This record gives sequence, C-alpha cells and structure tokens, in this order.
Amino acid sequence: MQQEQEMYAVIFTSILNEDIGNAYTIMANRMVELAKQQPGFIAVNSARNNVGITVSYWEILAAIANWKKQEEHLMAQHEGKEKWYNYYSVKICKVVRMYASKQ
Amino acid sequence: MQQEQEMYAVIFTSILNEDIGNAYTIMANRMVELAKQQPGFIAVNSARNNVGITVSYWEILAAIANWKKQEEHLMAQHEGKEKWYNYYSVKICKVVRMYASKQ
Repeated sequence: MQQEQEMYAVIFTSILNEDIGNAYTIMANRMVELAKQQPGFIAVNSARNNVGITVSYWEILAAIANWKKQEEHLMAQHEGKEKWYNYYSVKICKVVRMYASKQ
Repeated sequence: MQQEQEMYAVIFTSILNEDIGNAYTIMANRMVELAKQQPGFIAVNSARNNVGITVSYWEILAAIANWKKQEEHLMAQHEGKEKWYNYYSVKICKVVRMYASKQ
C-alpha cells in the first residue's frame, strides 16, 4: 500500500496508576468512540499490557488540535492527569512512509 | 518536555494468526533486544491485545533503514510474513511535537 495523501499520527503512551476502577475503561472506550466522530479522523488502534499505546491517525494537524480541545475530551484529559495516569506521553507525528500486508 | 532534536517513530501494527506457538514470543522479545543495540535507537514500547502495537523511536531515518535490513531482523520479517502475521502495517513517522507528564 502506497501513501496517497498526508497523514498524521498521535502516539499516546501511558502507564496507569494501580487500583484503577471501571470508570477508566468506560472513559477510554468513550474517547475512542468520540474520536471516531471528529472531522479528519482516519483510524485508531489501541493495546495495553504494562504500557498502554493508542495510536490515532488524522488527515491534518488542525484535526488533532481540534480533538485536543474538544469539550468532553478536555474533561477526560483532566481526569486522566488527576486520577488515572502514573505517566503519559503524547507524540504528534507526520507519517512519511507506510506499507502493509494485504488484508 | 520539549523536543530538542529530531526523532522518528516506526509504528508496527499487527494481528497474529491463530495457533501461534512460543516461537513467536521468543522472536519478538529477541527483536526488541536486538533493536536496542542498533545505532540511532532511542526507545521502544510494545503492547498487544487483539492488535499488537510496537513503536520504536530513532534518531535519524538512516537508522531505521539500517535496522530494516539487519540480517537477523530480515529473517524475522520473513518468518513473520510466512507464519505469524495475519496482517501487519509499518508506518514511518517524523515526530513533530511531543509532551509528557513528569516521571
């Protein structure tokens, strides 16, 4: 698969605090559903073992900026910092090359 | 944390075939250890549930190209395509902005 248009990736890496309740999972699932509804959203993948990695893909940088300041997402970010994340990092990236197996 | 120098990320996303034996885990762990020894390597994170996501970070694009063609890694890529991966994608990215919580 060759890349045809610009694409940006947001790599969100996190380590949860201990004793995280069910509320975290509900919030995380809700944020994925909400992200999918944003303009410029392309796709999202997520996995968690010791570390959690969520990578979302976007058409333009402005779409990422808009998602960052979306109202419900802002609340989730605040709760995440206060309650859930022992550590997190956000890396905003421009995809320069991509290839994949046949699906 | 502000970004001080250029950094590149390789996002490797994969879905495994069913009935994957122990050999896959041994290979995957070995590749992480081997990646860490390559020139230009910065860091790697990995998690797998339904989908597996491994993100490795590198100082320059040439380091990624060198790692891709490292001999033992080439063998692992071949075995992966033949035996282990139902699907995989590789996205090579330039990190344009990053921030993180205090550690």
